[in-house]
Amino acid sequence: MAKKFRIYTNEELVIGKNFYLNEEQTHYLKNVVKYSVEDKIICFDNKNGEFLCIIKELNKKNTLIEVLEQTKPFTICPDIWLLFAPLKKDNTDFVIEKATELGVRKIIPTNTRYTNSSNIKIERFIAQSIEASEQCRRTDLPEITQLANLTDILNNWDSSRTLYFMDETLNSKPFIDILKTTKNTKSAILIGPEGGFSPEELTLLRNLEFAKGATLGPRILRAETAVCASLSCWQMFLGDWS
Amino acid sequence: MAKKFRIYTNEELVIGKNFYLNEEQTHYLKNVVKYSVEDKIICFDNKNGEFLCIIKELNKKNTLIEVLEQTKPFTICPDIWLLFAPLKKDNTDFVIEKATELGVRKIIPTNTRYTNSSNIKIERFIAQSIEASEQCRRTDLPEITQLANLTDILNNWDSSRTLYFMDETLNSKPFIDILKTTKNTKSAILIGPEGGFSPEELTLLRNLEFAKGATLGPRILRAETAVCASLSCWQMFLGDWS
Repeated sequence: MAKKFRIYTNEELVIGKNFYLNEEQTHYLKNVVKYSVEDKIICFDNKNGEFLCIIKELNKKNTLIEVLEQTKPFTICPDIWLLFAPLKKDNTDFVIEKATELGVRKIIPTNTRYTNSSNIKIERFIAQSIEASEQCRRTDLPEITQLANLTDILNNWDSSRTLYFMDETLNSKPFIDILKTTKNTKSAILIGPEGGFSPEELTLLRNLEFAKGATLGPRILRAETAVCASLSCWQMFLGDWS
Repeated sequence: MAKKFRIYTNEELVIGKNFYLNEEQTHYLKNVVKYSVEDKIICFDNKNGEFLCIIKELNKKNTLIEVLEQTKPFTICPDIWLLFAPLKKDNTDFVIEKATELGVRKIIPTNTRYTNSSNIKIERFIAQSIEASEQCRRTDLPEITQLANLTDILNNWDSSRTLYFMDETLNSKPFIDILKTTKNTKSAILIGPEGGFSPEELTLLRNLEFAKGATLGPRILRAETAVCASLSCWQMFLGDWS
């Protein structure tokens, strides 16, 4: 078994502890990856870190696990939030997955003037982010909030957190010029919907002290591409990619 | 009609010219976006630039177009190539789309030791890249080559082109440290398959003067995420995002 299966659990992990995995996780271990008793897996708990564990019993509906040793300390991702306007289903799944891999700490689904948010399922977003966290070897999970309105979010903003909004109108500075000259690692990135921000939203954003418009080159990026691009650039300058 | 339909044609465009769009394009104009005679569209030809055009006839199998005026000069994307190991179908589609949006000049599907390249359809890649070019408002198309073996590509490499390979083993420098200290805009980025590079491939790459290993942070990125992340970072420093 070259690559150990990696799983998130909401049980607090300490060496020597015995606990049960749930039915869904048991099904996966038994029938999908075909693990058996004595096989080892990796667990993390979004609290104490990552641990090597051993399967002690594999029952019909649950799996008994023993925690053997710590393999990674708990590390929280850099202090970057993502505010994004939900897109069509597949693209939203994609945004959650990629934002998790790219190390965001918090994801805020954001209702804007032109957002199509009729079909938002936060439970689904959470499941996606857990799966992506397992895959990309995070020891924390991103926090995912309920859908909120952009204007409400801005009205309650902590002004010590810089909000970068990606500006398709190209009336803003290149993102690199802004990132080069800031040291504030407490940040958030806002990506509008396919139709962009409304003129009223742009006026509002441009008048806020804590908000900075930024451009990502001359081509028009789809929303999910702008998510990947802006988070990557931020991680390079202010996050844990340097 | 707020947003004009944008279309690539292999006809060379000059003001006053009349030409026919093909059956597929005609079907799309007529039945999908519901355009009619006298409506205007935007065309580009990967040669002379982008032009405003008018529909003069909309027949069963073709559309007669007249070129009215130039709306953008021809611009070629920065001199960045992408070498990537084809993935599962959807993820490969995604890579072609995102690489096109992120402004690569050339895409080289690359066979590596651990690549699953049984089902490569270059025609499909080209169709994807044309659609993405139409969407993101490029005036050029990325060139897409046939599948080639990594070792053959490396044996025939022009050593004045820097090749950045994304190194999951974390034995390389952060990409930002490399980008900060180079001025060579003639570049290529190599992204390995899900299983990574083989030990022999890594040894080969590490011994090449023109190749530089780079890391993209502590989390494990999926191949398609690494494509987006590395191209975005490159465009910021050496491309047209600054």
